[in-house]
Order: sequence, then C-alpha cells, then structure tokens
Amino acid sequence: MFAVNYVGSRTMALEEREPADLRAGEVRIAVAYVGLCGTDLHVFHGDMDARVSMPATIGHEMSGTVAALGPGVEGWSIGDPVTVMPLVWDGTCPACRAGNQHICQHLDFIGIDSPGALQQFWNVPASTLVRLPSGVSLRDAALVEPVAVAVHDVRRSELAAGDKAVVIGAGPIGVLIATVAAALGAEVVVAEIDPARRTAAAELGLRTIDPSSVDQAAWVEEWTGGAGADVVFEVSGAAAAVRAATDLVKVRGTLVVVAIHPQPQPLDLHRVFWRELRILGARVYQRADFERAAELVADGTIPVAKLVTGVVPLAEVESAFGVLEAGQAMKLLVELNAS
Amino acid sequence: MFAVNYVGSRTMALEEREPADLRAGEVRIAVAYVGLCGTDLHVFHGDMDARVSMPATIGHEMSGTVAALGPGVEGWSIGDPVTVMPLVWDGTCPACRAGNQHICQHLDFIGIDSPGALQQFWNVPASTLVRLPSGVSLRDAALVEPVAVAVHDVRRSELAAGDKAVVIGAGPIGVLIATVAAALGAEVVVAEIDPARRTAAAELGLRTIDPSSVDQAAWVEEWTGGAGADVVFEVSGAAAAVRAATDLVKVRGTLVVVAIHPQPQPLDLHRVFWRELRILGARVYQRADFERAAELVADGTIPVAKLVTGVVPLAEVESAFGVLEAGQAMKLLVELNAS
Repeated sequence: MFAVNYVGSRTMALEEREPADLRAGEVRIAVAYVGLCGTDLHVFHGDMDARVSMPATIGHEMSGTVAALGPGVEGWSIGDPVTVMPLVWDGTCPACRAGNQHICQHLDFIGIDSPGALQQFWNVPASTLVRLPSGVSLRDAALVEPVAVAVHDVRRSELAAGDKAVVIGAGPIGVLIATVAAALGAEVVVAEIDPARRTAAAELGLRTIDPSSVDQAAWVEEWTGGAGADVVFEVSGAAAAVRAATDLVKVRGTLVVVAIHPQPQPLDLHRVFWRELRILGARVYQRADFERAAELVADGTIPVAKLVTGVVPLAEVESAFGVLEAGQAMKLLVELNAS
Repeated sequence: MFAVNYVGSRTMALEEREPADLRAGEVRIAVAYVGLCGTDLHVFHGDMDARVSMPATIGHEMSGTVAALGPGVEGWSIGDPVTVMPLVWDGTCPACRAGNQHICQHLDFIGIDSPGALQQFWNVPASTLVRLPSGVSLRDAALVEPVAVAVHDVRRSELAAGDKAVVIGAGPIGVLIATVAAALGAEVVVAEIDPARRTAAAELGLRTIDPSSVDQAAWVEEWTGGAGADVVFEVSGAAAAVRAATDLVKVRGTLVVVAIHPQPQPLDLHRVFWRELRILGARVYQRADFERAAELVADGTIPVAKLVTGVVPLAEVESAFGVLEAGQAMKLLVELNAS
C-alpha cells in the first residue's frame, strides 16, 4: 500500500509499505478520503515537530470502509462505511474519571500523536469507529470530523434557537460553526477581514461583516437591539479579534474560544467582570457530536459540495498544502483508494 | 446632620447639612456604621472622578435603622434594623429584561453613582432595604455587603462541598470568598504574596500559600492529585496572577474574575482551549446573596470581630483611607450615630 509521511519542514514523502499488523481490538480501514486541515498544515510547517514522530503519517479527517477485523472485534463487518473519532484516552486520569475523556490529560490524538489516515490501510481501535448513516457518500463523509468540531463548539456554547451569534473567522471551522448554529435556529453573522474568505462564506448563504471597515461592536449593538450577542465564537486566532470579542457579548453572554492561541492574548477582563461574561474553551468533540455531525452531513445541512474545493491523489499532498497556505481553498480532500 | 464628602483627590470634607427631603418610595435610614472598601479607596485616589459628582457622599457598606418612611412605603417600621443592597436598575434594558437586573446596563450603584451612606441620615429607595436577622449587632451588619459579594462570587462559581478552591489575593473580599467557600464544605487555599495579608488570612484560620516562594501550579497539582482546582477565584487584580491562574484549574474547571482589571490582561487562551476551562465574570450581588450574607454574619460564620481592624468617627474618614492604602487594616468601619 501507499502512505504519505511528513518527514520534516514542508516535506511530504510518498512511501510504499506493508499495512501494519492488526492487533487485538483494532480494525483495518480501507481509507477512501482524507481532508487536510489547519492542524495538518501546522505539522507541515514544522510548528509541531516537538509533538510528532517523523516520519509521521498524519491525517484525521477521513472516511473509509472496514477492510479487516482484528482479534476480539465484534459488531462490525467487512465493507461497513465508517469514519473515525480519532481520540484515545487513558481512562484513568482525573479528567477521564470526571467524565471528560475527550480531553483526557494524556490524550492520544490519532493522526498527530500516533499514525493517521494518509495511508491506504489504516489500523485504529474499534472503539474509535463511527458508523456512517446510509446514503452518505464517502466523499461527503470525510467532512464529518470537522463538522463534529463545530457541533461540539455550538453545543458547549448552549446556543438556542432564536439566539444571535457572531462567528469571528470564516475558515472551514468558522463556516461550519455558523452553519451548525443556523441549522439550530440561531441568527448568525460571520466577521472576517479577508475578502476571499468573506466571499466564500457569503456564497454558502452566510451573513458576513468586515470588521476592518465596519465598527463591529456598533453593528452588533444595533443588530441585537442594544443587548449584544448571546454567543461569540472566536475562531480566528487573531489577537485583535480576542481584544474586540468581549465588546460583542451581551450581559451574561458567552464567548467560546475555539481557535488556537499559542501566546497569551490580552483580554478585556474588566468587560468580563462588568457584564458577568462567560468564556468557554472548546476542544475536539464527544461521541454525541460525531453522531450528530454524521446526521448533518447525511441530511444535507452541511453544504459539502460547496465546501470541498478540490480532490487530489495521495502523491499530491505536499502541493495541496501549498494551495491551502495560500488561502486558495476552503477544504481539500485526498483520495486514497479510488474505486 | 453631618456627612463627609469626597471633594477631590485624597480629600474628604466634613459637612453639616439638613437631611435630604424624603421622596415617595424612599426610606430615611439613621446610619450606624459604614465600612470603607477598595472601591471607596479608588474614589479617594481620584481614579473615578469621571464617574462621581463632587462633592460626593460615598459609602455603600453599611448598617442602620429605619428613621422615617416616605410616602407610599409599606412593610417597614421606625427602628427596624437594616442594611442596603445599593443597586437601582432601570428595569427596561436588555439585561434587566433577561433577569439580570443586578448588572443592569444603566445600573445606579448607590454610593458611587448617587449619594452614599457616609451621612447620618441617608435616603434610599425602600426596594433596596434588606432586613437584618434578629440578634445581629449593627456593627457586625456593616459587613453584610462585602459578604454578599463573596456569596455571589461563590454561588456563581457553582463550587460544591468537597471541591477544592484557590483564592488568589487575601484582601477583604478574598478572605470573605475563602470563608464562604469553606463554610460550604469546600477545601480552600489562599494564595497571597504580601506577608502581612497572608498572616492575617492565616489568623482567620485559612490555609495560605506564598506564590512568590512556592511553585503554586505544582503545589495545586499535588494538592488535587494531579487534577487541578475545581475553582480559582482571581481577586488580586495583578497581571501575574491572571497569567498564572489558568495553570491552576482542572479540566472543565472554573476561573472566576472578581478583581477589577482596568487594562486588558494577557490570558493563556491555549490553556482555556486545551482544558475546556470556564471563565466567569462576577460582579456585585443579587438579593438572595444579600439575604444569605446576613445569615452568615448572624450565625457567626463570618469572623467579623477579627476582620474589623478599627472603628473611626465620621471626621476621620480621610485618615482612615490613609491607613487602608498603607495596608495596615483589613476592614475599617466609620461610626455615624453613636448611641
């Protein structure tokens, strides 16, 4: 089979190798599609060299079919269409014991901390499999993982039908959060300074504002009748966005921190105090989020066809990262076992 | 009667004047004791000149007895011992309509935005009165307001019996939060860099650590069996404390922002994301907090005698602020109608 490995800064190397041995409790998946995401791009850039073991087979947004069952695996059949919730927890740390296994203090995020999906045959613990609803194409199903992130973020925010939400940042996760929030019955606006991303969001039917040309605090004040937004999602990773986000939130409203901010960011704690705001970190997903995400992909709520900018073969992952970093694509898929 | 007014930076002026006319719905209180707090000290320092109208009669931690009833006031009798929840809301703003009157978007905080308690007879809306439980001395009752702040902060945190909490900062509000949290059945430690405040907290029976000589993150890790604290209260107002606070909180734990941070502070948003932390602003109180605070003062849970460092006459408010700013007192009371 073929795999593609990250072998050092900005370099992906195609490799032909035998599939790994199937261990007890594992399932071998014939990988169909793998989506490339921002985290993969961080790995590609060398920003996560301290965490990944090179050569590293990355990739964690995927779809495929069950190809083989390891010893002791029950409940799955060869050919079952699946995706993977790429989390393995230790089950013993304080977070796990408190029921927060998805953010286990020693979490193995498959595709970063252990081998990922950019290989034609991928072995994963059967516990990570998520059954795909009937009728979903494998191509569409590659988006279930990022949709699950969005479902988790929205669920954690406790956003309700009729609420007003601002999503800061119109990258793939921002757009998915906005879509999931709208599907819930919330009114949503996406704030994005990049014209191309703003246009892409608008083409998905999302309302957008440009914080570089509009006073977004005044805009939100007007939009919400002087109250402020019920929920603001910070998905941009930009310091200026964090600094401004608290001004958009209503009294006792919620700011969800979705983006990764490697450095501490100045935050208006006086506003947090004055309005009794709630700030919530939101990371990855739980199984319920994955199952809901699969439904949203299956029922057409997620405009997959518009989100997927292109599909490339395994040999072209390196150049695909170049397209992504140039901001020329919303979502690129890698096709591994073309039938 | 006598009043004392803030008349400009670091200057308080004694004034003899007639009590204000009693309007419909108001009650005149014969003020017994007024506590001086950090906010009063900010006014005294001139930091809030843009908000107060000079000459300003400040003061909002108090006790007294009903001296006269304005037209239309029912349910109160002359001589009733009372304290005041010094909040007047407009009832019409989005925050009020959502049930958050205590942080009304146009809140009148009596004693800052309108005349306060540092006068022998003080007129307030009857709606702000809080009846004192029988058996509470008026001297002790002057502490109900800051205790209500602490009760509100602890209630907002959802701290539960058996939880572990860290209180950063051992000023009056910090030690009251620690006391209220301990009374709830939580295990509490107070982190304070100032030796005198640390000693004062220890003399109140509180466990303390010195973050300048102890690695507090390692200490909390050890104390909590590797989990982190359930709740951390940031009551110091120090940038370094904010920067370090997120390291003390368990997965899905809570950081409560109690202190006033006039400037945006660098916050570790990666930790907020990684551990799915919750940050809550907490400001003033609601009526239930005041009533619970009065009970905690009445039943001896709050060690009032140890907290009150001294009692001064109205003419000595200016010098009392000097003692406070020198860090030589936990709580000073002003006595207005000595019997």
